[in-house]
Parts: sequence; C-alpha cells; structure tokens
Amino acid sequence: MKVDGKHFRSIWRERDGWSVGAIDQRRLPHEFVIARLTSCEDAAVAIRDMLVRGAPLIGATAAYGMALAMREDSSDAGLKRAYDALVVARPTAINLKWALHEMRTALAPIDPVERAEAAYARADEIVEQDVEINRGIAGNGLELIEAIAAKKPGEVVNVLTHCNAGWLATVDWGTATAPIYLAHERGIKVHVWVDETRPRNQGASLTAWELGHHGVPHTVIPDNTGGHLMQHGMVDLAIVGTDRVAANGDVCNKIGTYLKALAAHDNGVPFYVALPSPTIDFAVHDGIRDIPIEQRSGVEVTDMTGRTADGRLETVRIVPEGSPVANYAFDVTPARLVTGLITERGVLKPDRAALAAAFPERIATAAK
Amino acid sequence: MKVDGKHFRSIWRERDGWSVGAIDQRRLPHEFVIARLTSCEDAAVAIRDMLVRGAPLIGATAAYGMALAMREDSSDAGLKRAYDALVVARPTAINLKWALHEMRTALAPIDPVERAEAAYARADEIVEQDVEINRGIAGNGLELIEAIAAKKPGEVVNVLTHCNAGWLATVDWGTATAPIYLAHERGIKVHVWVDETRPRNQGASLTAWELGHHGVPHTVIPDNTGGHLMQHGMVDLAIVGTDRVAANGDVCNKIGTYLKALAAHDNGVPFYVALPSPTIDFAVHDGIRDIPIEQRSGVEVTDMTGRTADGRLETVRIVPEGSPVANYAFDVTPARLVTGLITERGVLKPDRAALAAAFPERIATAAK
Repeated sequence: MKVDGKHFRSIWRERDGWSVGAIDQRRLPHEFVIARLTSCEDAAVAIRDMLVRGAPLIGATAAYGMALAMREDSSDAGLKRAYDALVVARPTAINLKWALHEMRTALAPIDPVERAEAAYARADEIVEQDVEINRGIAGNGLELIEAIAAKKPGEVVNVLTHCNAGWLATVDWGTATAPIYLAHERGIKVHVWVDETRPRNQGASLTAWELGHHGVPHTVIPDNTGGHLMQHGMVDLAIVGTDRVAANGDVCNKIGTYLKALAAHDNGVPFYVALPSPTIDFAVHDGIRDIPIEQRSGVEVTDMTGRTADGRLETVRIVPEGSPVANYAFDVTPARLVTGLITERGVLKPDRAALAAAFPERIATAAK
Repeated sequence: MKVDGKHFRSIWRERDGWSVGAIDQRRLPHEFVIARLTSCEDAAVAIRDMLVRGAPLIGATAAYGMALAMREDSSDAGLKRAYDALVVARPTAINLKWALHEMRTALAPIDPVERAEAAYARADEIVEQDVEINRGIAGNGLELIEAIAAKKPGEVVNVLTHCNAGWLATVDWGTATAPIYLAHERGIKVHVWVDETRPRNQGASLTAWELGHHGVPHTVIPDNTGGHLMQHGMVDLAIVGTDRVAANGDVCNKIGTYLKALAAHDNGVPFYVALPSPTIDFAVHDGIRDIPIEQRSGVEVTDMTGRTADGRLETVRIVPEGSPVANYAFDVTPARLVTGLITERGVLKPDRAALAAAFPERIATAAK
C-alpha cells in the first residue's frame, strides 16, 4: 500500500540481496524509520520487541530470520538452534510456528551448503504467498462491502475494526483492511471506525496511520465506543484480523475483540474475521480452552508514548504509582459470535466442517 | 474515605463558612490539589471542565453553586440566572437538574434576603443526604458481596468496575465502591479489577488512586480486558455507577459500560448498578432512545497527560496528526442486561414496576 503516494511493503530483502528491511512499527505514528535486520538474533528481537507485529508479518520475519541464520551456520545444529530461538519469540500467533515449520521442512532434507540460498528462496515465496493470499481476501471481502453498498446507494459504508490487521500486520494489503482498500480503490464510499486498541494503541498508531497515509476516510475511537455506535446504526459491518483460529472456528485476536463481537451480535451487525489460511490451527479444537494467551509487560498499560506540542517524543506514566496492572494481550471470540471467516478461498462459516472442507491439505498436515 | 490515613470528602464548605473546597480531580493521580470555589461561575466552570465529576458530586457542586450565587444576587432574576448557568454545565447526569430543582423549590418561595442562608442550609442537606444514601447503598450491596464470599470461603471476591463511581464521584463512600469499601472494612477479602476507562482514564486516574490510598487491593486493566477475565471465571460480580437511570431501568453510564454488561451476561456474571435515587429519571421512559449522550472534545482522545520518569507532567499526542476522532462520553445499557439496581432502598429489579414501587414520591414529582 501507499505512504503518501509511494508504495511500501512492511518487510523486504534489501538491495544487498541478503539483509532484510522492515518498518520499525514501534516508532509509528510519530516517526517513519526503516530497520535493517542482519542476523537471526535481529529477527527474533524484532518479533519479541514488536518492531514487527501482526500474525502474518511475524511469520514472514521468522522466515527471513531462518535465512539469515543459514548464512551464519547452515549445519543441522544451526537449523535447530535458529528454529528454537525464533519459535519462542511470541507465543500466540500460530503463523510464527507455521512459517518456521515450512522453512525447516524445506531446509532439513538438503545439503547444508545449499541451505542459505534455499532459505532465502523459500522465505521469498512465503512473503509473496502472503501478498497473494491477502489479494484473495480482498476480493472475497469486497463482495460483502458491495452487497451493503448496494442496499444504501450513495451512502457511506461504515466498517469497524479493532487493532491493526492492516498492511503493516502483513506484507501488503492487510487482512481485515484488504477488502476496505479494494473497496476504496473501486470507488465505494467507505469509512472506518478505528478502535484505539489499548494498551499498545495499534489502532490509533498503525491502522489510523496507514489508512490516513493511503487516503481512506476513518475516525479513531476509544475501545469503549463500538457498542454505542452499533446500538445507533452507525456500523454496517465489523471486520477484524486474528492471530489464531481454532479448528472449531473460535477466533483469537487482540484483547477486546470479544467485546465487539458481543456488541455486533446484540445489534445484528455482521461480524467478520479476515485471515490467511496459515492462521488456522487445525491442531487446536477448542479455542477458548486451549489457545495460550500471552501476558505482556505492565509497562504497556502504565506508560504511554507520544509527541508533545513542541515536537518532542515523551513517555508518561498514566497509572498511579503502586497500583498493580494486568496486561492480557489477546482474547478468544467464540465461533457462535462470528458471522463468517473471510479467507483466500472464500467466506466460510466458522465451524469445523467448513474449515476442513476448504483446507483439506491443512487437516492432513495437522494430523501428522 | 481516607487519603493515606486522613479522612476526606470530595467537596465541603470551607472554614470561612461560605466558600467551597473541592479536590481538583483533573490533577489526579499526579497531584493532590484543593480548589476553592467562590462564585456561581466557579461552580459552573468546575462542573464543565470536570474539576469535579461524577453524577452525585455534580449535583452537590451545583447546589453550592446556587448558594454562592445567592450571596451575589438573591433576587428572583438572580435565582433564575444561577439556575440557567448551572443547568447547562453538563448534559447527561440527571443529578445536576435534580439538585438545581431542589434548590429552586426551596428558595423561590422565600424572601430574597433569606435566600443565601437558606441556600447553604439546603445545599448542606443535599450533601449530607448524598452521604447517607451511599451508606445505604453500601449496606445493601454488602449483602451481595457477602453472599459470594460465603460460597468461596477464604477466597478473594473479585469485583470489576468501570470508570469512577467511587467516593470522588460522590461526596463520600461512592456508589459502586460503597459496598466494596464496606466489605473491606468488614474484613472480607475483596479485589477490584479497575477498567482504565478511556478516553479520560477515570478508572486508572481516580478509582485506582482512591482504592490505593484507602488500602483496597486492586488491579488496573485496559477496557478491552473484562470479557476475557469473565470468560475465565476471574470476575465474581461487576458493579458500576450510573449518570442516569430511565424509568424502564435502562442505565446510562460511562462509554463502554454496555460492552461489559454484554460480557457479564454472556458469562453468567452478575452485573449490578449502584445508584442514589436522584439518579433515576422517571420522565425518561426509554433510556436508549431518549437519554442525550454528551460528545466531548476530541483532545481527550488524541492527548494523554502523565508524569515523565524524571517527574515532569507532560501532555503527549498519541493519535496521528490529521486522523479525526470521535468522543461519545456515555452509552446506555439496556435493562435486560442488568441483574439489579443497588439503591438506598434495597436491590431492585431494573424495571418500571420495581422502581415505581420503591420510589413512589419520585413518580409524583416526575408527573408534575
């Protein structure tokens, strides 16, 4: 997508052919800074410290991390070490494991001297595949937006989203935002209600930033607001992303997603989840019971970074000293609250049968 | 309640007998500053700029505002001018109108020369009545907490609350917090999940501050978190305050309350609303349709004030320049999601019949 008219992806191979460039998302929306990753350790730290975030982008970064590792040590021990170092960088997004599994499957059988080259090739494929998948999601989700636009000709279609499932969370296009960008490109009047998404504010910091720089009308709202808007007919549909979908259709996503799904259900607002198929975890059968929920540092809750009126970046504490805080990063929305899953193979019912029918080859892999 | 061992109320007559002291709540939790109100205009500004906030405290402040006005001009015109200036200071909390109506009813029939003294006397009564009402709420709500504690002997009772319906929102005790303070005093192990309450962060700034300084165990959480906690059995009951309850039991409260009520309902967690009876508006028959929802400045969403590591107070912008924001201050929770209304006359069903039976004298006033 575009940043003030210039095309960008969230991650890429640099011109030197081996190092990896990525937008440092911790600095947004205040500064646009490119980071250069030159080792497996760099990639692991980028994932852990959320220089990159978003389930698909975490997968892509891990794939390049494996390629960087193979430059340093392409032995079997080196392969294992790289896998082990990267797989623990974040616990919830299944794409991390998926990408590392793909890389290991491609690299393990071949001669160590060929592994570095093969690793870059497979990582590039994973990255291109992510873009292709998101184009598929865009097309399938567009039909939902077109159907709503057809019912209210000339009027704006209001979409609510939570967190950032935009192009910054993927390689390009995004998942939840892909249909929105495509609708905007096709001349449909869309307006996005952007949940701020405390505590890390990915909605305000990233989604608003990318929508604004691409030129899509939007309004930032506190996370508390969505229920009121839905109650008053101000939301036509909700689209969110996800970090992991269980085989039963339960959706793990940024904390607070469940609350919006409840509000959508209570008000008859369609609630869609956009996801690339690698986000489906066919090995987890009950999302609420079995998806691990990451607990992150309380500093994300107590402290807030922003720009002062005179342009300085400052971090301020907003919670009283001595008050404990808790920081659960995700919640799980039960499948019963989800209208449909927008995937690259169509809009699916959120249940075991529909997922299995659409992705039979993944069932086979999960059984292994 | 106590601030580090010393007893405070949120508002009081100063020793000079006429000026009014109040805690400047805009400065909390960073600074503890006492403001002195010396005119009707001071009182109106204090309400409008949220130096004081919380429905009952707004009512108390307006009452003293009328008293201050009577010192300046106790004529019929002066009475009308003071009423008109104060009634528009905030739109949603019905206690403002209630207190002003009480004051006018007391003052209009009497000789202007007696009005200043009578105004202070009636304002003092309103203030004492608020404390008495909250003691009643404390006792009635305590029974709910005791019943839960009896079911899990020795374990902690976890209460979730949203915004600040603490003693800072009233004159003393609070509404939602009144049963919590009383339970704590009686030795019941209570722990409070404190919703941060964006955009103004009254949970983190005020509720955590007052619980912490009184010594009640609590944990601050982002507003997005409550659903996840309830899904995992980590909340025994929710108690919130309210700015206005309609005659049908619909509850208007800080934006985001509706989302927590949905989550409580979905997980079988009892959801209670604590309120002094002046908060009931018998003239509004459908809360969702008819309670006006204040929209406040976007600056509350875009900017955040806190303390830097080296102790300076700074305000930082957290939303990208150029991204529009919306700031709806309240939402309405339909009565069907409310387990009960904790009032000074008992825990009531949230419906017209129960409210009318408990407060028959208010029905008569509303009909006038």
